[in-house]
Formats: sequence, C-alpha cells, structure tokens
Amino acid sequence: MSVSAFDLDGYLASRRQLVDEALDRSMPGEDVPPATVHRAMRYSVFAGGKRLRPILVIAGAEAVGASADTVMPTACALEMIHTYSLIHDDLPAMDDDDYRRGRLTNHKVFGDAVAILAGDGLLTLAFRAIADNASRVGNAALACAAVAEIADAAGTLGMVGGQVVDIESEGKTVSAETLDDIHRHKTAALLRASLRVGAILGGGTTAAVDAITTAGDRLGLAFQIVDDILDVEGNLAELGKTAGSDERKKKATYPALHGIEASRAKARALITDAIGALVPLGPAAEPIRALCHFVVNRRS
Amino acid sequence: MSVSAFDLDGYLASRRQLVDEALDRSMPGEDVPPATVHRAMRYSVFAGGKRLRPILVIAGAEAVGASADTVMPTACALEMIHTYSLIHDDLPAMDDDDYRRGRLTNHKVFGDAVAILAGDGLLTLAFRAIADNASRVGNAALACAAVAEIADAAGTLGMVGGQVVDIESEGKTVSAETLDDIHRHKTAALLRASLRVGAILGGGTTAAVDAITTAGDRLGLAFQIVDDILDVEGNLAELGKTAGSDERKKKATYPALHGIEASRAKARALITDAIGALVPLGPAAEPIRALCHFVVNRRS
Repeated sequence: MSVSAFDLDGYLASRRQLVDEALDRSMPGEDVPPATVHRAMRYSVFAGGKRLRPILVIAGAEAVGASADTVMPTACALEMIHTYSLIHDDLPAMDDDDYRRGRLTNHKVFGDAVAILAGDGLLTLAFRAIADNASRVGNAALACAAVAEIADAAGTLGMVGGQVVDIESEGKTVSAETLDDIHRHKTAALLRASLRVGAILGGGTTAAVDAITTAGDRLGLAFQIVDDILDVEGNLAELGKTAGSDERKKKATYPALHGIEASRAKARALITDAIGALVPLGPAAEPIRALCHFVVNRRS
Repeated sequence: MSVSAFDLDGYLASRRQLVDEALDRSMPGEDVPPATVHRAMRYSVFAGGKRLRPILVIAGAEAVGASADTVMPTACALEMIHTYSLIHDDLPAMDDDDYRRGRLTNHKVFGDAVAILAGDGLLTLAFRAIADNASRVGNAALACAAVAEIADAAGTLGMVGGQVVDIESEGKTVSAETLDDIHRHKTAALLRASLRVGAILGGGTTAAVDAITTAGDRLGLAFQIVDDILDVEGNLAELGKTAGSDERKKKATYPALHGIEASRAKARALITDAIGALVPLGPAAEPIRALCHFVVNRRS
C-alpha cells in the first residue's frame, strides 16, 4: 500500500473540530436540569475520543459528493451511541472498569444509577439527532432509513448482541468463529453503519453505497483486530486503560487465538480489501482510504 | 361525569390483542442469537402489562380517523420504551426491586448485565419500529416527527430526566413543585407523547393534535397521581409489587404531600379537563374519553 499524499492529520483535526462543535450544540448544557445527568453525558462525550465514527459518517457522505454539514446530526448521533455503549460496558455489572482514556469511568464519578441513565439519555438523544437530519438532507425517507440502519447496527442483532456474547464468553474457550462473531457485532457493525449511512444520507447511488458498505465492513473488523493487538501490547500511557485488561478478564482476543503476526497480516489484508472496494469512487473516496490506513497503523 | 355507553372492556381487550400480536412479530424470537437477551426482552415485554401506551397511540390515531394498523409499529415502540424503563428502574443500582406485577424482575432472572443490555436493546428496537412506520403512513416526515417527539418525551428532558430527579430526591423533603416536576417528566411525558404521536401519524390537523395533546397531558398526570394513591392503598395481590414501596423507599408521593382525598379530587379534575379538551373531536374521540375514565377509576 502506497502512502497517500492526502493530509490525513489535517483532515482528522478539521473534521474532529466540526464534530466537537456540533456535539456541543446538540447536547443539553451542564446547567440544564436535571444537571447531574447532563454533566455525566458531557463528561464521557467530551473525554478526548478520536471521533472515528462521526468522521466515518462524514467521509461516507463526502465520497458521494455531499458535505460534512449535510450529515452532521447523524455523525453526532454515532458518537453518542458509541459513548453510551462505553458508559454501560464499564459498569460494575458489565466489564467493571475504573478507568478509560486515563480518566475515571462515568460510574466512578457519578455513581451507577446516573451512569445508567446518562447512557440511556445519550442513546435516546442519538435518535433525536438522526430524525433532525431529515430537514438537512431535504428527504425524510433517507433519515428514516438512517434510523433503521443505525438501530440494526446498535441493537441486539449488532453491537448490543455482540456485548451479550462477549460477556457470556468470558472465562470460556472461544472458537475462532465465535470471536469473529463478537468482533463483527460488537464493534464492526457500528463502524460499517457509520460509513454506510453517510453515503445513504449523502444521496449516493446503490452501487456507491454498496462499495462503501464493503469498505466499512472490512475496516470495522480490522479496527477491532488492531484494538486486540493494542490491548496486548499497550500500556496505560498509550491506551488510557490498564494494558492487557482483556487478558486479565480472560477475554478472547484475535492475537491470543491467532498470534500477533497473523493478526497484523489479517488486519492489513482487510484494509487492502476495503481499499479495493473503493476504486470505482475515485478521488472522492480519498478520506475513506486515508482512514483505512489510520485504522490499521494507529498506536492508540 | 356520566358513564359512557362505549364498551371500554371490549375495546381494551381487542386493542391489547392486536398490540400483543404486533409486538410478537416485531421482536426477535427467543431462539434468535444471542438468545439470552431476546429471552430477557420478551420476559419483560410479555409480563401481562396493560398496554396503556400503545392503546393511547391507537386511540390518538382513531380520534383523527386513522386505523390502529396505521400506527401499530409506533404503538409497539412505546411499549418497548416503557418496558426498557421498568427493567432499568428495577436494577439494584436504581430502585432495587425484586418483583414487578407479581413476577421476579428482569435482573433477578437474567442477571444485571443482561438486564441492562435487554433494556438497551428494547430502546434501540423501539426507534427501529418508529422508522418502519414511515411506509405505513406513506409519509416519512411524519415518522421522523414521531421519532423526535418520542425521543424528547423519553430522554433527559422527559422520562429519563424524571427518573434522575426521583432518585436524587429519595429520602429528602420534596416540595409540591418538585413532585409535580417528577411526575410530569417520569410518567406523564411518555403518556402525553403516546396520544400525540398517534394523532400526528394519523394525519390529524394542528387543531386536533393540539386538543389531543392537552388531553394527553392531563391524563398523564392523573395516571401518576392515581398510581401514587394505589401505592399507598394497594396490596401485593392487586398491584403485583410490595404495597407502600414508595413509602418504604421514602419517595415523595401525591397523597403524602396533599392527602388521599385531595389527590383523588386532583385526578378527577385533570380528567374533566382532558375530556373538555376533546369536545371538538366529537364521537371519534370516544376511545380516548373512555381511557380517561379508565385511568382515574382503575384499581391496579
């Protein structure tokens, strides 16, 4: 894979700033009653995330000729859904994590009850934001399609389902098929949906949406494999959570089942596949291609 | 108030059956993987609820001349949202209830992690269902409006927000204003939204939607006041939860602040108000009127 001349750092920084500003506008302020839950929601949403999912929504739209602005409410929705899932996953009843990105997790600061409700509030607000996208795209049917796509990717047939299988598999011997299943549902489904709804809301043709969906599928799985590798290799400074936490909890990982080198090769092959699917889209897909490289080369 | 000739029992039974059948069709089966979470979702959705919120959606649609079928996906969505809120409210981190409607609560059967995820799954599936309503009403803009209305009523500016204030008020002296605020947000907002989105999706005029919204607002608050009265008076056989549980948890209630008789009078006055708002709608609003009487006269 040749290194693209595309300025990825500049792209990520500019899009991240747009997303951060839009998130700030689309969420109730810290003083809006009941203030506790709004503070809790903002604590986790503004915790230094990469904004990968919103930027994928934007890149999906840009690849079919639409602007970031057109899809911004849905981009924000994807970050809200991602954040709610982290808040609930970190709860004592679930993964029981005290730190994330080097900061105390939501329930350690606000208590379990408010953390549960902050997650519920974010998930609910996310769908409000997608519905609001109808007026921007001037096509309510596309916004309804986005609600359906994202609900499928986030629900029990997607992310929530993956988390169920993940929790049920802790401490058990997991087959390669089950691990693939967990990764596809728990992480890849929402990443795939992010790119896909960007292309749908951007008004892409069926062929373009299909190509972008394929790229999203491969990128999503590659992301989780790299996440597993980073968990094995990482340290608190780089990853912001206790390194090796998956191993500590006896969670199955890609490197544990296949080894580090085979895992790296698999991630690279998936990204090659993703970039292959994007060929018909030409230069407009350059941000997605750059994001593919970013996902596989990231160090945190 | 004169007793209506409308056959409320027959109406409730027929609509409840339609809702139960539609809920069964709109939720993954117990064998669909991951089966645990789908069993947990169905355990609480099919726990003998009154289906009040879905029937309000239907009655709202019927009052503007639309059929139950037209709004059925959204009717189901309201029951999913109501059920998710009960599952999360019952968690040890929240109200810590072991029984509801005479059965073990979700987390007592499936564990806290699966109960959290079953709630998340139901909330997510609810928005999927509302989006699916677009094709039935032949107007995606109305479905987007329904997503927005219901998200507002269910989120931190509605139901979730009410639960936050409720939890924060436990064991404290609560003013009449705060109690009203809790009731309006925690319960009334979603009941009001149920009637309102039925009328919106049913294609009602602005005047009709406004009248139905006023009725929903009064009916919603009356429902919660009656709930408080039943909690004080009730017993395990009638209500299916430990009677006086609000008092045991030192939760503020309407009768505790205002006395039983004043509470009853307030509920009746609200229902009179609701029925007054419905006058311009004529006979088509008969189901809503009957539901108003049902809410204030119910024994469980």
